[in-house]
Amino acid sequence: MFDLTLIGIGTGNPDHLTLQAIKAINAADLILIPRKGEGKADLAELRLAICRDVLTNPATRIVEFDLPVRDETILDYKARVEDWHDRIAGVWKAAMGDAAQVALLVWGDPSLYDSTLRIAARLAPDRVQVVPGVTSIHALTAAHGIALNEIGAPFVVTTGRRLRDEGFPLGVDTAVVMLDGECSFQALDPAGLHIWWGGYVGMAEQVIVEGPLAEVGAQIVALRAAERARHGWIMDIYLLRRG
Amino acid sequence: MFDLTLIGIGTGNPDHLTLQAIKAINAADLILIPRKGEGKADLAELRLAICRDVLTNPATRIVEFDLPVRDETILDYKARVEDWHDRIAGVWKAAMGDAAQVALLVWGDPSLYDSTLRIAARLAPDRVQVVPGVTSIHALTAAHGIALNEIGAPFVVTTGRRLRDEGFPLGVDTAVVMLDGECSFQALDPAGLHIWWGGYVGMAEQVIVEGPLAEVGAQIVALRAAERARHGWIMDIYLLRRG
Ligand SMILES: C[S@@+](CC[C@H](N)C(=O)[O-])C[C@H]1O[C@@H](n2cnc3c(N)ncnc32)[C@H](O)[C@@H]1O
Ligand SMILES: C[S@@+](CC[C@H](N)C(=O)[O-])C[C@H]1O[C@@H](n2cnc3c(N)ncnc32)[C@H](O)[C@@H]1O
Repeated sequence: MFDLTLIGIGTGNPDHLTLQAIKAINAADLILIPRKGEGKADLAELRLAICRDVLTNPATRIVEFDLPVRDETILDYKARVEDWHDRIAGVWKAAMGDAAQVALLVWGDPSLYDSTLRIAARLAPDRVQVVPGVTSIHALTAAHGIALNEIGAPFVVTTGRRLRDEGFPLGVDTAVVMLDGECSFQALDPAGLHIWWGGYVGMAEQVIVEGPLAEVGAQIVALRAAERARHGWIMDIYLLRRG
Repeated sequence: MFDLTLIGIGTGNPDHLTLQAIKAINAADLILIPRKGEGKADLAELRLAICRDVLTNPATRIVEFDLPVRDETILDYKARVEDWHDRIAGVWKAAMGDAAQVALLVWGDPSLYDSTLRIAARLAPDRVQVVPGVTSIHALTAAHGIALNEIGAPFVVTTGRRLRDEGFPLGVDTAVVMLDGECSFQALDPAGLHIWWGGYVGMAEQVIVEGPLAEVGAQIVALRAAERARHGWIMDIYLLRRG
């Protein structure tokens, strides 16, 4: 018998934390923090630092767990992810012990390209509560000081893979691209496209570039590679607009 | 010479406020708060209450201003909005006096279906800073405890008008609909569509309904009308998913 709270913590700036997130952190008996391995050590560190900064409840325990790695011998993509999620759920279960109020800190907002809700469902908690957070989409638009949509117009949020496979989304002039390890905008005809790109948005490491895709595309590719080499990891996101 | 800060405050729950928003509120010399007229008095009240709750800087002044109304004698939609934005900018200018650090509280996130950035540009401030906020999209998904996207899949964010005029967006199975005064989902063939609807999401008044559109559509229309009558106003948002 336990409740699970998924707490959106924003995109790496400790000041993205909401008052609701701080209350939820302090209402937990136990907070699970993943260790993702050396390359992303900063992110586990950041979660720990966030907890240390705002935790005032002496009864709340922080427990770190080793995030399982994907089993690359499972060739089918869906099956590989399902197996991975099953094993993560198992590790959570073991780490939770008999805590009644368990919390997980989720990067950005828990509903946006994140598996925590799906993994949580495997544990059949009595109740799942979600605390919404600031997403990388809005950290990007804030960094550039731009509107996401044109007046009354729709936009698409998609992934690097989809952009490569399907081209610029149909029926819209604005697309936000996430989960893109390959600067997939290179697969598009850049004519008439403007890009607002950001790495580490909201964080101290933030870098942003903006301009016609034809003019700044190559610069972004080079900058992304350099920043990634320098920090050992990168997260980036961009908005493309037509016309 | 002045700086303008647009502060995302979340969608009506004072606990949606981020630490960054609280710092920005306290860094301002002057905070402009719109009065929208009686029907939406709660929202001006809410902004005032948020300021009162978190303001610790005695030097920060709060100034209320009357939001101009749209000039309905201007028949062209774009021209009517441009004129309205011009006049709002004029009212801000007059209310600001010679404050050097001016802040505006923006509902949800300032980049999402909001004109504050466009109006701000008319005043040519030395610097515009944007503080990202929790949006109604994520308040909706949090209320329902659901993921916004299917694994690796894109989604569209659109308006009620577009949904009526263009039908379900092309190339995606998930659409979020905002700015819909007319329950525009009624214009769709409901077969195979699931809806997650929410009014006043994140607020004390929150109401949510979820189910196959064919089964719950009429219930949502009736509930929306009843809640709107009861409170004198409503804001609602929904997610539609195919299959
Ligand atoms: C697994 S998704 C998680 C998204 C997260 N739930 C959110 O609300 O932003 C990871 C992707 O989010 C984007 N992202 C997250 N944080 C970011 C940051 N600080 N700067 C740039 N992109 C970021 C990148 O596109 C990255 O590939
Ligand atoms: C002018 S837009 C502003 C959106 C805002 N900037 C945001 O980030 O959510 C107003 C629309 O947002 C949605 N909305 C905002 N707050 C809401 C709430 N608390 N509950 C439901 N819908 C809301 C509704 O669709 C409404 O028509």
